[in-house]
Amino acid sequence: MGDKCEANMHKNVCDLKAMVNAQNKRIDELIRFIKEGSKTDIPQEMTWCTCNLNPYLECLNPDILYHLNLDTKTTDFPKVFGDVRFVCLGGTGARMEKFANFIISEIGLKLSMAVELRNISADGHRYALFKVGPVLCASHGIGGPSISIVLHELIKLVHHAKCQDPIFFRMGTCGGIGVEPGTLVITSQPLDGQLRPVYEVVVHTQPQLRPALLDQALAKELIALSNPCEDGYDTILGKTLCANDFYEGQSRLDGAFCGYNPQKKMCFLQQISQMGVVNMEMESTAFAALTNQAGIRAAVICVAIINRMEGDQINSPECVLKDFDQRAQILIARYMRKVLFKCDENNVETCHCDDAPGCP
Amino acid sequence: MGDKCEANMHKNVCDLKAMVNAQNKRIDELIRFIKEGSKTDIPQEMTWCTCNLNPYLECLNPDILYHLNLDTKTTDFPKVFGDVRFVCLGGTGARMEKFANFIISEIGLKLSMAVELRNISADGHRYALFKVGPVLCASHGIGGPSISIVLHELIKLVHHAKCQDPIFFRMGTCGGIGVEPGTLVITSQPLDGQLRPVYEVVVHTQPQLRPALLDQALAKELIALSNPCEDGYDTILGKTLCANDFYEGQSRLDGAFCGYNPQKKMCFLQQISQMGVVNMEMESTAFAALTNQAGIRAAVICVAIINRMEGDQINSPECVLKDFDQRAQILIARYMRKVLFKCDENNVETCHCDDAPGCP
Repeated sequence: MGDKCEANMHKNVCDLKAMVNAQNKRIDELIRFIKEGSKTDIPQEMTWCTCNLNPYLECLNPDILYHLNLDTKTTDFPKVFGDVRFVCLGGTGARMEKFANFIISEIGLKLSMAVELRNISADGHRYALFKVGPVLCASHGIGGPSISIVLHELIKLVHHAKCQDPIFFRMGTCGGIGVEPGTLVITSQPLDGQLRPVYEVVVHTQPQLRPALLDQALAKELIALSNPCEDGYDTILGKTLCANDFYEGQSRLDGAFCGYNPQKKMCFLQQISQMGVVNMEMESTAFAALTNQAGIRAAVICVAIINRMEGDQINSPECVLKDFDQRAQILIARYMRKVLFKCDENNVETCHCDDAPGCP
Repeated sequence: MGDKCEANMHKNVCDLKAMVNAQNKRIDELIRFIKEGSKTDIPQEMTWCTCNLNPYLECLNPDILYHLNLDTKTTDFPKVFGDVRFVCLGGTGARMEKFANFIISEIGLKLSMAVELRNISADGHRYALFKVGPVLCASHGIGGPSISIVLHELIKLVHHAKCQDPIFFRMGTCGGIGVEPGTLVITSQPLDGQLRPVYEVVVHTQPQLRPALLDQALAKELIALSNPCEDGYDTILGKTLCANDFYEGQSRLDGAFCGYNPQKKMCFLQQISQMGVVNMEMESTAFAALTNQAGIRAAVICVAIINRMEGDQINSPECVLKDFDQRAQILIARYMRKVLFKCDENNVETCHCDDAPGCP
């Protein structure tokens, strides 16, 4: 047998072993989901482990993170990104730049007056990426396909950088279902348009349903950091409907097309409300499925900018929307301080709204 | 019967009539698709007609095009956009700004040295929108959900503006299947990940499969405007696989997850190649389905930046990618000149490649 042939066979055996390992993990994961999917409590003992990741990643030299405009040849990932503990995603680059600048002082850092934050991925023209100490802030665009690309690349980034147990957050805006505009919603369970707790990925023409699971303990920790009386708005936990479309997929009457009537729309909103759905957005199933597959703890926190029971068009003034936008950021900052400074800063006395008539 | 009650009943009757009309159109459309879906030649006599649009649009006063940061109250649509004849979409705002500036002189216009093009939708932070005389240039982000939002709003825009028979183009980059990088691909038929010629929209939990049809005559007109010898690259017509994912959905081996091996990947690429698929991207089914539903003539023109039969990672130098990026723009400019100036400028002698050994 020639040397080249032997080397090829050796590579094939390595590939196959890596595949078998990866598939074993996947089978375990699927069996666990089938067995436990119907229980209310979802197993939360996930820890970040590279064992579920693509076995071929190690063969890539360099690995090009095309949409983030980064590669492992020209960037020393462990040196540049090794300290990352939180990865925060939001729809637009503008929102994430604002969040990055907000979080600097929130976590006790200071930026020299001679510099400003730089969008690391600007030349890729697709996504924005900012780094503030242990916090990475990325934009994800709109919809599952768009967020899935940046998640693939961010998961590869934290893997190459050897980050320790990073936590991912998605912050955004949403339509509330029976909740007041301004309410902060933490997702307990994302559901797809067919009300399934999954994200569909079509591989080689076959739809695969990936469990869209979020970290329940993290969601509860976040809720515990809210304080409706002090904050002046509610923070609630509930199911999220993740649609692939802003108009028909969310039963709006103001899209270019509309094949139903107002009665059908209300009937649908009431149906999902009765199931515990409190909001609708467009990325939570993909976000939950991909982070869950990587064993990454993750949470989705969105502010309702409209109560869909009362209308479709978003007509709040810009200043109100800007105020709403800060609410998820404030809660995430509280959580980061708690983790980074190992202290629970909930030093506000518990407010007993029922007992205190003067409480707003 | 009280006045209010009577008014309500009158409104309900109006709503129902509008619904019945819309549904009749939809039923006709579906029957036509079922009857003719399997034929090679798709009926091309589509003309822009507002009859398929949402019957409730007329009740919106104002209509807020939220993601484009426009509304019918503060903008006089017929005055500002009434002259639009071409709507061009591409992934990024940067590409569309470049295209907008390129097309100015291509269609014989000139911009005063005292001004520059302005992103009309900049304050919406979601999509970019530029206007150059009869040409509207919009970014669409990545994936079906993202392009569907901007299409809903652009279709409403041309409707409110009373544009006459506008033509929509999507220009972009793609992975070629057995075609050389730099080849320009005009889509004859987009297929979804399951190889169906449809775009799935989930309405009230039920998946609806909308026919993803493009204007065949327009595609042929575009091909006729290409000139491989003069251009220095091929322009071809073929089927396009539209995936919901850049990595696993396109059988890449370099995503964060990968549950198949290189042999399975090649097998899949060969399978779709044998079906006539020449490229893969992420928006063509949504683009084709929504424009088709509105009766708008539309074409998808993408340049291959990689031959997926030979690899997954995009590692062409930036200058090469920039050159590739111009190719769809050049072809669209030729088409616009042909339409606007009513002349076929194909004044280059037909080049007989087979007879001319010196021809590149």
